[in-house]
Amino acid sequence: MPSLELTFLGTGTSQGVPIIGCDCPVCLSEDPRDNRSRTSLLIRMPDLHVVIDTSPEFRTQCLREGVNRLDAALFTHAHTDHVMGFDDMRRFCEMEDRQMPIYAAQETMTHLRRMFQYAFDTPQIWKNYLRLEPHVIDGPFQLGKTTILPVELPHGKMMSTGYVFSREGRTLLAYFTDCACVPETAREAARGAEILVLGALRDTPHPTHMNFSQAIETAEAIAPGATYLVHLSHEVSHSKKQPELPVGCQLAYDGLRLTTPL
Amino acid sequence: MPSLELTFLGTGTSQGVPIIGCDCPVCLSEDPRDNRSRTSLLIRMPDLHVVIDTSPEFRTQCLREGVNRLDAALFTHAHTDHVMGFDDMRRFCEMEDRQMPIYAAQETMTHLRRMFQYAFDTPQIWKNYLRLEPHVIDGPFQLGKTTILPVELPHGKMMSTGYVFSREGRTLLAYFTDCACVPETAREAARGAEILVLGALRDTPHPTHMNFSQAIETAEAIAPGATYLVHLSHEVSHSKKQPELPVGCQLAYDGLRLTTPL
Repeated sequence: MPSLELTFLGTGTSQGVPIIGCDCPVCLSEDPRDNRSRTSLLIRMPDLHVVIDTSPEFRTQCLREGVNRLDAALFTHAHTDHVMGFDDMRRFCEMEDRQMPIYAAQETMTHLRRMFQYAFDTPQIWKNYLRLEPHVIDGPFQLGKTTILPVELPHGKMMSTGYVFSREGRTLLAYFTDCACVPETAREAARGAEILVLGALRDTPHPTHMNFSQAIETAEAIAPGATYLVHLSHEVSHSKKQPELPVGCQLAYDGLRLTTPL
Repeated sequence: MPSLELTFLGTGTSQGVPIIGCDCPVCLSEDPRDNRSRTSLLIRMPDLHVVIDTSPEFRTQCLREGVNRLDAALFTHAHTDHVMGFDDMRRFCEMEDRQMPIYAAQETMTHLRRMFQYAFDTPQIWKNYLRLEPHVIDGPFQLGKTTILPVELPHGKMMSTGYVFSREGRTLLAYFTDCACVPETAREAARGAEILVLGALRDTPHPTHMNFSQAIETAEAIAPGATYLVHLSHEVSHSKKQPELPVGCQLAYDGLRLTTPL
């Protein structure tokens, strides 16, 4: 049966979990759900395999999950924990002998172009190099049968981009991470989504990321089928935190897969 | 006893081994020595813990090896497989509440500054952010009791930087990777080094990297105590290739440690 499959490639915040040299209970935890590489989501439908962000661990995430096809990459913003695996997309260019379509808002694309200048500026003639097909987004766009609506989310002095995926009348997925809040226009776009993914850093407030109570309030306003929280810090123990969350709201973890018939 | 400890954090070429989606015998090998993250070397002496390059896997390499102190980072060049773990040095700034001294040739530093602009340009006031102390090198420099001599190596249209480490009259280590050859000035600087690390991609020639026969010829000319080969491609099976190498010349592998009394 045709299906939508979501694979959480990574679910951790900027330094991942465990953090280098940290001996807190979560960083020393043997629960694999507490082992969090940097946040990224793989979305697979029969006609479209797309990743949101390429974290520093993108290569090992792909190896872990057996990813051998990628049709496009979307970017939320250009902070290091979301983009440093960018060059490893080269392998998907090589395997299919194709350019890799990438989608990002203007500000994000400008940063990507600065950071990965060689990939944007080099003649794209080498089969095993990263060959890009950049698309600056400023409104909804179509990939296969899927419509993707970008929404702006405040993230400190900058904006990050959230994405809402719809297909044949269904709002399949809304993905909002790295934001201080989810403004009403974005909530409206996501309302009733089958799956909502939200960034939720920790219990205590943070100037540029939602904490748990803000994410829970946002999820209640959007009223999705189910909510999954990502971009989790080492202050979050999976086994301790999960029982405190409302019904329908779950902590994601690296390697978690969700499958829905299409 | 005071000692020099070398830890091979990574030993693979640009895409690492296994390569995403590759089903060659080496990429499917269960020999852990065939599992190669991107090339980086950690050098530890009582007064100095220094890394050469910060590969995309730098965070997980540090976790694997229990690295919890770093006093400086040297860079060979700014290709993605050598620098994309750069931001993960932030943790060593946080733990010691210090800036991280980084050393690179002018061209490499210019690229690092472009790629990691935020870390160079932001006021360095946040305890858990990457705080840099950049040093552009153009000749020998001293770190603790160790003298480090940079040498230029041709790497396609650009140059990479090799490093020769000396201490109290001993030439401890020469590290030459990502080069089409090792010119006579660099050979002379490294002659008789106790340990020589050379990049050696594969059997067949490559325009910008030494292959095995070029690396072996270079090692014979330098006549070190021992030679270790890094930056290995997925064409190299450890168990098959090692027996073909001359006495004193070994394939390095991720996690290999060498210890020498000082």
